[in-house]
Amino acid sequence: MRVTALAGGVGGAKLADGLYRSPMINDLAVIVNIGDDFEHFGLTICPDLDTVCYTLAGIANPDTGWGQSEDTYAVIKTLERLGGPSWFKLGDKDIATHMERTRLLRARNRLSTVTAMLSRKWGIECCVLPASDDPVPTIVSTVEMGSLAFQEYFVKYQYQPQVVEFIFKNASKAQPAPGVLEAIEASDLIIFCPSNPWVSLDPILAIPGIREAVSSKRVIAISPIIGGKTVKGPAAKMFKELGIYPSALAVADHYRSLLEGILIDHADDALAGAIDRMGIKPLVTDTFMRHIPDRIRLAEEAIHFAKRNEQ
Amino acid sequence: MRVTALAGGVGGAKLADGLYRSPMINDLAVIVNIGDDFEHFGLTICPDLDTVCYTLAGIANPDTGWGQSEDTYAVIKTLERLGGPSWFKLGDKDIATHMERTRLLRARNRLSTVTAMLSRKWGIECCVLPASDDPVPTIVSTVEMGSLAFQEYFVKYQYQPQVVEFIFKNASKAQPAPGVLEAIEASDLIIFCPSNPWVSLDPILAIPGIREAVSSKRVIAISPIIGGKTVKGPAAKMFKELGIYPSALAVADHYRSLLEGILIDHADDALAGAIDRMGIKPLVTDTFMRHIPDRIRLAEEAIHFAKRNEQ
Repeated sequence: MRVTALAGGVGGAKLADGLYRSPMINDLAVIVNIGDDFEHFGLTICPDLDTVCYTLAGIANPDTGWGQSEDTYAVIKTLERLGGPSWFKLGDKDIATHMERTRLLRARNRLSTVTAMLSRKWGIECCVLPASDDPVPTIVSTVEMGSLAFQEYFVKYQYQPQVVEFIFKNASKAQPAPGVLEAIEASDLIIFCPSNPWVSLDPILAIPGIREAVSSKRVIAISPIIGGKTVKGPAAKMFKELGIYPSALAVADHYRSLLEGILIDHADDALAGAIDRMGIKPLVTDTFMRHIPDRIRLAEEAIHFAKRNEQ
Repeated sequence: MRVTALAGGVGGAKLADGLYRSPMINDLAVIVNIGDDFEHFGLTICPDLDTVCYTLAGIANPDTGWGQSEDTYAVIKTLERLGGPSWFKLGDKDIATHMERTRLLRARNRLSTVTAMLSRKWGIECCVLPASDDPVPTIVSTVEMGSLAFQEYFVKYQYQPQVVEFIFKNASKAQPAPGVLEAIEASDLIIFCPSNPWVSLDPILAIPGIREAVSSKRVIAISPIIGGKTVKGPAAKMFKELGIYPSALAVADHYRSLLEGILIDHADDALAGAIDRMGIKPLVTDTFMRHIPDRIRLAEEAIHFAKRNEQ
């Protein structure tokens, strides 16, 4: 089965890893959010691309949700002593990624090419694609602090400011990275990973052509909201601040026109009927991924679900 | 006594450190070569500024001649594994310097401001000034490889290609950094540190206004060439390739119109007469700086020499 997954950070990376490790899928492409990308200390940092790649390569730090495992912090310690900003915790191995990526980008390689080059070095055998080679920075418009660059909102201010809206800057002018539309078109199934709908998957879908390509395909989502809460990150808080009760139902509604089905957690069993009435098939299962086998199980449940729907 | 020193890398930094540590000098400015500066992995690296600052701060690596003491190499090891270029050996603490400098420059601070900010953090109590805030990259025109950026010539190719000429790119359009001309004008004495005349001090003197300001002042040089050889680096090799026999005499001649006197090593005793006939006062002494006391002694000999000349 040929699958294309849309993913943001940690949750998305875990499900993508499940798809990657499953023998049920013989061709996998992962299209990754680039709205979080930013420049820091002159280096181009792509948090979601790195989380996905580190996870697929088996070198992600399982404790933090960002960075590499067994990393050291010599550079950031010295930077702190120099009075530099230390709100974005950069490990030494992680800095090497950002330096090499920045070097390759400065040498006029596209982000998609650089991602492929680094993926090969990390031994990743599926196709990891940034949504676009053009910068599409997510701006978070907030009540207390006005417009914030995404990483400022997310890491520096720990997503505490109240959201007014999200702006996907330059999205209308951006083009899908080479391979993105091709991967979607060649796929039997599109998976929306359990990522933040607002700031992980929407920025991907905002790039002209991607939503249209996805809409012609069968799409299965996995809800990132379990029992009204997110496993990690601010998705539930964002739903609330935008006046929507956070739930798996709200997630289904958010993607409404695109979805064939959605995997929701046992905790949200009561929402299955309402989702079904929306015209979206629900599958109630255990959506929380504690360990690597959970990732594979959940990925394969999504595939089996899609196969059953087909019959 | 108010002194302004012109310095390049290791040798210049050592003599500058001697001046800095000497109680004979109550006001010291060090004007540093920026011709070696380059961008690497998206970071702005200023090798001579760093060597001077690390030396004055007492954190220079005494074994390598570059970088900080007690540094680690976690980032560069990972970069090598990623296939990135590793010819420029960057320690982790050193990378922190380059990252913070790059961050401050991107925030629209001038290089001179950034240098002052970092100097303060390092506890340096004299004024370290880049020759200019404008980039003035030294290009080495070579027989075998054509034009090379300085660090490529110097570090990557270990100064093996044969030199045709040096080009101080953009020098004619550059301005002295704020404080440079003021420091020279306020000084009782200018010291040309034992740095490479071709690629350490000439790039400073090539910036419009600096040579003129220096020429109205008393100038004492310390020869970087001892017995036809350099303590470190390619100065002697450069003299040869440009058809000049490398010697303390050649150094004196190089700066001819600017010098009041020059300190030469005992090994070059025989050249004193010829230098004197050139109209430049020679002082024969031990110019090799093994340990920190040597730096102070040599610095103070230069000061005493200038004071004697005055009488």
